[in-house]
Amino acid sequence: MPQDKMEKPYLVTCTAPVNIAVIKYWGKRNEELILPINSSLSVTLHQDQLKTTTTVATSKSFHEDRLWLNGKEEDINHPRLQSCLREIRRLARKRHNDGDPDSSDSTGLSQKVRICSVNNFPTAAGLASSAAGYACLVYSLAQAFGVEGELSAIARQGSGSACRSIYGGFVQWIMGNKDDGKDSLAQQVEPETHWPELRIFVLVASAERKPIGSTSGMQTSVQTSRLLKHRAESVVPSRMVEMIEAVRRKDFPAFAELTMKDSNQFHATCLDTYPPIFYLNSVSQQVIHLVHRYNKYYGETRVAYSFDAGPNAVIFTLQEYASEFVRVVQHFFPSDTNGEGFIKGLPVKSATLSEELKQGIGLEPMPKGINYIISTKAGPGPRVVEDSSQHLLSSEGLPKKTV
Amino acid sequence: MPQDKMEKPYLVTCTAPVNIAVIKYWGKRNEELILPINSSLSVTLHQDQLKTTTTVATSKSFHEDRLWLNGKEEDINHPRLQSCLREIRRLARKRHNDGDPDSSDSTGLSQKVRICSVNNFPTAAGLASSAAGYACLVYSLAQAFGVEGELSAIARQGSGSACRSIYGGFVQWIMGNKDDGKDSLAQQVEPETHWPELRIFVLVASAERKPIGSTSGMQTSVQTSRLLKHRAESVVPSRMVEMIEAVRRKDFPAFAELTMKDSNQFHATCLDTYPPIFYLNSVSQQVIHLVHRYNKYYGETRVAYSFDAGPNAVIFTLQEYASEFVRVVQHFFPSDTNGEGFIKGLPVKSATLSEELKQGIGLEPMPKGINYIISTKAGPGPRVVEDSSQHLLSSEGLPKKTV
Repeated sequence: MPQDKMEKPYLVTCTAPVNIAVIKYWGKRNEELILPINSSLSVTLHQDQLKTTTTVATSKSFHEDRLWLNGKEEDINHPRLQSCLREIRRLARKRHNDGDPDSSDSTGLSQKVRICSVNNFPTAAGLASSAAGYACLVYSLAQAFGVEGELSAIARQGSGSACRSIYGGFVQWIMGNKDDGKDSLAQQVEPETHWPELRIFVLVASAERKPIGSTSGMQTSVQTSRLLKHRAESVVPSRMVEMIEAVRRKDFPAFAELTMKDSNQFHATCLDTYPPIFYLNSVSQQVIHLVHRYNKYYGETRVAYSFDAGPNAVIFTLQEYASEFVRVVQHFFPSDTNGEGFIKGLPVKSATLSEELKQGIGLEPMPKGINYIISTKAGPGPRVVEDSSQHLLSSEGLPKKTV
Repeated sequence: MPQDKMEKPYLVTCTAPVNIAVIKYWGKRNEELILPINSSLSVTLHQDQLKTTTTVATSKSFHEDRLWLNGKEEDINHPRLQSCLREIRRLARKRHNDGDPDSSDSTGLSQKVRICSVNNFPTAAGLASSAAGYACLVYSLAQAFGVEGELSAIARQGSGSACRSIYGGFVQWIMGNKDDGKDSLAQQVEPETHWPELRIFVLVASAERKPIGSTSGMQTSVQTSRLLKHRAESVVPSRMVEMIEAVRRKDFPAFAELTMKDSNQFHATCLDTYPPIFYLNSVSQQVIHLVHRYNKYYGETRVAYSFDAGPNAVIFTLQEYASEFVRVVQHFFPSDTNGEGFIKGLPVKSATLSEELKQGIGLEPMPKGINYIISTKAGPGPRVVEDSSQHLLSSEGLPKKTV
């Protein structure tokens, strides 16, 4: 084959989901391998609303690895990205050398890759795009290189929480205790079909300032917060057991209360960090007050909140309460658009609020505090996209114009 | 003596200071006796700026105990107030029965009291007025009934932090471990003259809402926060030792860093409370960022903050940095009055800020975030006011018009 003749690349495209932790991960015991100081548990969000799509191309004609993120070429030499690439290639080589009959030479162990990735949600949504991003990268590379089996430990080396996005539904990341991290893996607790009544809303807050990144934030917390150490060692282990139980039993009040307590405790350890880290702003505080007053009004826990390293609330509720609570949010965070485009994603039925409920909550409305709501539910893990028209890279291995 | 002839009351007037804890008290192990779950340490603020004044009148002609607070008659039957009255009368009786020659019958063990109390600072300042109030009440009653000796354990039964306002300067409240609370006492660590370079500023924030009271707040925290329990048992004991050392050595960076860490940890335990309690608002967060950036700019800890159960910052700094830092506050919290009346209390020299410093701090100014600054320093404990024209009660035992 002449050098100037381009060999058509092998293309594979996959999608992967975002996840939101209800028992929070904060702090590493090993920075390089990304080994956490405690186990965590998350709900995988549905990809119809929030997903990363990644195309991986391999070809003998490629002379170097290249990467495009959201339409812009980025440095492929990012250490964590390199960790994932290295691990996938190592496993592919191992499988090949072990003489696995399914391991085809055509996967091109020595071939260079081109990677193109896009999110269907704005970074401004403050959702952990790195979790979906690294899960999708690892899943796509595994397809391209013919690697099967446990991928969560590889995704973990890209971004800790990415290991949980390798599975759908309710997922635990078991911290493990080996030094090499081989036992620090994600595991599905229940599939996404387990609890169909569970509804999830992301309330995208109007952020006042860009918060501190989670990588450096958790480093400082591990170094300075006495409360974080206590949380990881003495509080989380029993909470993991309780949370798994609550999910298995579909016990919403137990799930909801533990979710709120754990979110609050995570933010408490951020405040105990020196200098302190604030992720909750005045909008977040108002959402927290709103949820507690709503639950108090009904005398039962119908709604829960959880906040990651940013001001946006993720709301958990049951189908039967969803439409009323969304109306409550709209009432106490009135927007200019007044409903038009305010709710994105899964449709929400209209509901009317009684004066008694509004007065029972008794908060001062906070205009424009929330930009919009993403309405979603629990969803499945990563998928291969069979429709070849969906590839993000052309047959020349370059990003398509539409990206 | 005829019944209708009014016997002139015996009048005594005292003043007592506010204190601000640098190792925080939050949580009781005994609600009735007010016994804390950890020791604490405070700085007594100077009464020239912040004080409570109380007049106690006793007379055979009084038929009942009565109380006026800030010009309004209040219920004397408040349980904590009754605890203090009961204890003082018990000690007076004990002393009388023991045949102490100094114990005069004229102190009128069986006589009823009238109490009139005023603060020289608005409640809106968010300072713990109950600490100064109960310290002043107990100190004044002790004078009126001829009780001497340990008063902090009595003041403690009015309001926990009041026991620390019985002394000037730097004061520790030793938690004790007896069930009857006899060993839960305040003790002076160093007098107010020990560290004359230390300056204190109260930044009175424009509060968004009235925060939850400390009594019910700390009850909920004790019941629900795992982190509070850990803090009280495992973090505070060593911090008390470190803080006493820092005060004795006048080691400002050590004092300042521990003060900030302990304030943050207290607020972290509030956030770990269920439902969570927020005392820090967006203004408080901005002050915290400002202090850390100011210190970072100079590469040393020149300023510290501490927050009690409200959004107002108490700033500690040294005389040499005071005027510049106040200018920094004025720059990043511009007020309408532009300096006129913005600084109350001890005068602050003017200072100019370099562009480099402003840019080094690099925060977005927050107009009207701070209403005013009270400029003060460490001060002495309670005092008797010798000038009889200062009594708040008339010779008829009623509040003077001027109150």
